[in-house]
Parts: sequence; structure tokens; C-alpha cells
Amino acid sequence: MPHPISPRAIAAGLTELWSPRVIAELDGNYVKVARVDGTFGWHAHADEDELFLVLEGRLHIDMDQGAVTLAEGELFVVPKGVRHNPSAPDGCLLMLVEKKSTLHTGDVVNERTRSLDEQLRPV
Amino acid sequence: MPHPISPRAIAAGLTELWSPRVIAELDGNYVKVARVDGTFGWHAHADEDELFLVLEGRLHIDMDQGAVTLAEGELFVVPKGVRHNPSAPDGCLLMLVEKKSTLHTGDVVNERTRSLDEQLRPV
Repeated sequence: MPHPISPRAIAAGLTELWSPRVIAELDGNYVKVARVDGTFGWHAHADEDELFLVLEGRLHIDMDQGAVTLAEGELFVVPKGVRHNPSAPDGCLLMLVEKKSTLHTGDVVNERTRSLDEQLRPV
Repeated sequence: MPHPISPRAIAAGLTELWSPRVIAELDGNYVKVARVDGTFGWHAHADEDELFLVLEGRLHIDMDQGAVTLAEGELFVVPKGVRHNPSAPDGCLLMLVEKKSTLHTGDVVNERTRSLDEQLRPV
């Protein structure tokens, strides 16, 4: 049976930080949620736009040109190729929409990097 | 300068019912908001999945096989090809994400149908 999905409830149940989990598919895109806290690190996605929607808390996104701070319920699309560094000094819960090909840490691989398999684990 | 987008605030400012407005682009997709009330009508999108996220109120989606009722903050993806009929007896505010090619009323053209130009009007 079809059932509604609550991004906020799923995100609230996550314990690992900066570790997105896929909650839905939309054509060639994944909808993901994540619990974040602190600073993620600079990276870019050469071929993919990335939508951030704040479910709870506040998210700051530094970019090479400009910055944006999202309150609860607000969204922002980081265009492909734009270097960005998300941070949430007080923690926040996020929803993301991005092409399935999007690599977690973009052009950077570090201790934060999560594989697609990890992101596809059941929540 | 980059600026946050508040889907709920934009949707709340709409007066025309069932008339989606584009608020962002994400690769080949549009993010839209709409104010809805009553019943939309049965239709399908042969080639496009359609994401519904409830910003305020409740949305019911009848489908050929099953139905789903979304509370505030909940989402559901209607898979391509699935005939569906959204309704909101008490009204609601919605966010949608769908491919740019998605026609408003799918395989049906009626008085509810809005052109892409209409959906792209500034909000």
C-alpha cells in the first residue's frame, strides 16, 4: 500500500551526522534526509544542482560568491559547479534533492564521504 | 546575491487555486508551489514522477490502486503512469518537484490546465 513519507520524522531518527539517507526516488533523482552539525567542508558537484530544504534548525551555506542562511522551511539550490560549504553551528535536519549521480562530497573524498550504498540503507 | 526561498510563504501568497508557480530549478526539474482546495481531477503523467510535499493542511491522493493522505510536512511521489486525483477538502499549500516536461493536468486538458508560461510568472 502507498504510504506517506515524513522527511522530518526520518531525519530526526538519524544519529550519524552528515550521513544522508535516501527516502524516495523521483525520476533520475534521490530525495534524501540528513542530520548535520558543525561544518561539512568545501566541495562542488560539476554536473549536478543540489537542493537543500531545512526541516528543523538553520543551515548556512558558504559559496565562492556569496552565502545564504536558511531558516526552517526554507530552501536553496546550489547550482552545479559552485563550490559550497554547508554548516550548522547549532545542528539541523535537512532534506536534499539531487541527481542519483551526485557524489556525497563532490570532487573531494574525505572522512565524511558516504557511498551510495551507505545512503541507500533502510531508515 | 543568493537568497533563501520560502515555499510556504510564497504558496501562502497565492490566490488562484490549483495554479502552480515555479519557485526554483533543479537540473531538468522545476520546484513549484500551489494553493489547492477541493478536488483536482483524474490524470496521469506518462513519463514523469511527481513529488508532492504538504506545506500546510492535508492532501489526499486517490490512485487507481490505493490512496494516501498526507499531513503537513509529509511527502509522496506519484510514479509515472499512475492515474491520480489530488484533493484537499479543507484546502492546503503544496510544494511539487517534477520534470520540466510535466504537463499540469497530464493526459487531460480542462479548465484547470495551466500552461508552463502561466506557471513561470513571477510570484
